[in-house]
Amino acid sequence: MEFEQIRYAVADGVLTLTLDRPDRLNAFTARMGDELREAFDRSDADDDVRAVVVTGSGRGFCAGADLAAGGAVFAHEDGGRGDVHRDAGGRLTLRIFESTKPVIGAVNGPAVGVGATMTLPMDVRLAADTARFGFVFARRGIVPEAASSWFLPRVVGISRALEWTMTGRVFAAAEALDGGLVRSVHPAAALLPAAYALAAEIAENAAPVSVALTRQMMWRMLGADHPMEAHRLDSWAVTRRGRSADAAEGVGAFLGKRPARFPDRVSADLPEGYPWWPDRPYTPLGDGPAT
Amino acid sequence: MEFEQIRYAVADGVLTLTLDRPDRLNAFTARMGDELREAFDRSDADDDVRAVVVTGSGRGFCAGADLAAGGAVFAHEDGGRGDVHRDAGGRLTLRIFESTKPVIGAVNGPAVGVGATMTLPMDVRLAADTARFGFVFARRGIVPEAASSWFLPRVVGISRALEWTMTGRVFAAAEALDGGLVRSVHPAAALLPAAYALAAEIAENAAPVSVALTRQMMWRMLGADHPMEAHRLDSWAVTRRGRSADAAEGVGAFLGKRPARFPDRVSADLPEGYPWWPDRPYTPLGDGPAT
Amino acid sequence: MEFEQIRYAVADGVLTLTLDRPDRLNAFTARMGDELREAFDRSDADDDVRAVVVTGSGRGFCAGADLAAGGAVFAHEDGGRGDVHRDAGGRLTLRIFESTKPVIGAVNGPAVGVGATMTLPMDVRLAADTARFGFVFARRGIVPEAASSWFLPRVVGISRALEWTMTGRVFAAAEALDGGLVRSVHPAAALLPAAYALAAEIAENAAPVSVALTRQMMWRMLGADHPMEAHRLDSWAVTRRGRSADAAEGVGAFLGKRPARFPDRVSADLPEGYPWWPDRPYTPLGDGPAT
Repeated sequence: MEFEQIRYAVADGVLTLTLDRPDRLNAFTARMGDELREAFDRSDADDDVRAVVVTGSGRGFCAGADLAAGGAVFAHEDGGRGDVHRDAGGRLTLRIFESTKPVIGAVNGPAVGVGATMTLPMDVRLAADTARFGFVFARRGIVPEAASSWFLPRVVGISRALEWTMTGRVFAAAEALDGGLVRSVHPAAALLPAAYALAAEIAENAAPVSVALTRQMMWRMLGADHPMEAHRLDSWAVTRRGRSADAAEGVGAFLGKRPARFPDRVSADLPEGYPWWPDRPYTPLGDGPAT
Repeated sequence: MEFEQIRYAVADGVLTLTLDRPDRLNAFTARMGDELREAFDRSDADDDVRAVVVTGSGRGFCAGADLAAGGAVFAHEDGGRGDVHRDAGGRLTLRIFESTKPVIGAVNGPAVGVGATMTLPMDVRLAADTARFGFVFARRGIVPEAASSWFLPRVVGISRALEWTMTGRVFAAAEALDGGLVRSVHPAAALLPAAYALAAEIAENAAPVSVALTRQMMWRMLGADHPMEAHRLDSWAVTRRGRSADAAEGVGAFLGKRPARFPDRVSADLPEGYPWWPDRPYTPLGDGPAT
Repeated sequence: MEFEQIRYAVADGVLTLTLDRPDRLNAFTARMGDELREAFDRSDADDDVRAVVVTGSGRGFCAGADLAAGGAVFAHEDGGRGDVHRDAGGRLTLRIFESTKPVIGAVNGPAVGVGATMTLPMDVRLAADTARFGFVFARRGIVPEAASSWFLPRVVGISRALEWTMTGRVFAAAEALDGGLVRSVHPAAALLPAAYALAAEIAENAAPVSVALTRQMMWRMLGADHPMEAHRLDSWAVTRRGRSADAAEGVGAFLGKRPARFPDRVSADLPEGYPWWPDRPYTPLGDGPAT
């Protein structure tokens, strides 16, 4: 797939994904969704990618679904029982959820509708002081999508999630910061440097396979009913990682007060069985119907 | 049912529910619980109600269970296996949980015991600077009720929930604000205006059916194990709402830069199947035994 | 069991558990884990213990797993299918999770690795301004343990949890406070007094059996899918506690404006069936394999 609506650039261990329809404030299309999912597939497969930064081209981040088609834009067909339309925003956020690389959102301007919800499975969000956010679905007569009913209350708490989605309010970066939607707000010119500094802190210090497992453990156990489930999972993971070359190197480097050079690669050295973890059967969903 | 212990008043699209036993600081009774559940039934059925504000009459919000009966007030009968006493606070909070209208708590004075826990399934809580809160159950020898063990940690985090319920401390509005229990604190005279302003922001901008679905999606997915569950749900909901007259109007109004006039009504136009959502079988519990 | 690596001291209703390997910054060993679990068993059985404060001896809290064995310290044997190594940190945090007494972490100095994760099932964490925290696992080539993938996102939110565990950063008490990991930061000399003041607030005001049930209800319902589960649980608990001598005393003392003297004891008066609550079957895991 040739990327037409996003840019994909790897430098210094960091993949920058840039939504790239600046004349439309990077409005989301089915094509953009396909390209982004493909980009995360490539990112997972590329050991040179240690972290991902997602940002927008021009003055916007993502203005939401492209409404060029007018009122029919959300009128998806439903082929009947067992053939429900799968929300494109959700297919994207579920793909980001499964990423083995850290994902940092650098929200440079308006992030509205799916432009806001697509950031929720990213691990950390930073905003320019020119950013605005809006979970505007109820103002358009539809409902929050992109699995945001799962993500948003977990990121900002249930009360803030309800206030933002029931009013449909568009709000400034300061309110996003106050509500915990973003970690920090920066002058526009300082946004990407801050995102890259965080990416570098991971890339330069942490073992990539450890980061991949850590990311998946945290996100998945967010839905677990009892800490015993996490105990089973991390007993399994610690046992495997504890015998790895990375662990020997990590402890050796720490004791030797020198930087670690971790040999294991995400493409080859995730523990056998991943992602079908013990007691947490996991079936990735393909492109077929959701039900 | 004639309301004796609450007042029910609809104006400008907002239902104000006022706990109305001011000589008892609006202490909670079984009768008050019945009236409140009935009020939410009426609210759901009345399309003129776009949001609900709950407040107290006089200087209190709700002083908790009425202890006029003395030490026996909590000594409910247990009819044996299969006939457990159903906590009246929980019957109320579960009913509020199911509301299709936004619920805003305007806590004007002391909110103690069930007076505090009944506010937890409300979407947003605002407090007067004269409000006080107390999850005092452990000081009375009983335990938190009204399903607050589910709600409170999700609203304020587990550590704050534990500190407040294990100490049983009565605390001021400022501590409630710091802990995230309330969204904002107001001079007493400014409390209801602030609550009504928030209600109006929803009523004047958002499609009522979208608000109803949004509210239920957020609250229910708070208990889902995996974002796939939300993806299934919102694929279903977006498909249905995307073809609605509301969606055509919402997008058209946005593109035309004019206010939207949403035709769909909560009483008639919730998607077929609600609330028995796909992959989330839901059985409302009647007045019978809980087990 | 004779305690060699911890100190166990009960005074004024409060058990102080002191990690006591000051020459090793109280680095964690298998032995220390065994002693701590044993200490919580004794605490649960001792009605003179109304709250537990955990702190470190000397200038550290706990420097993490003792790396004296070098790079092999994490290289646990895996005896094959059905015989996974059980993570020692998780055995400890699950034990703290089950405590019937409130647990307050008083973090006096560096808390790194398992020294940080062991504090997560404690109810409240206070820190000295000399404390530092580090979820450094990814920097050692391993993964977060001690069921921290379940606890950490629930305590500090998913974004902060991911940032701290994926960078492996060691951070100061101020960052821990900002992220919600600790409730308050104190000058070193004021740390234990603050912890004891909170313990006393519980011990002097709340019924011990109520505190035990409250603690378990809050922690366990944090994993429940629907508030109905909490309603079933607290209907059960309120019915039983409402008829208790403690409830009669608690209400009587409140009405009489006098301090309550609660007769019920945790060792004898937990409701029949605990911890096998209705609709929440619970099987404690012994020392055998996790799978």
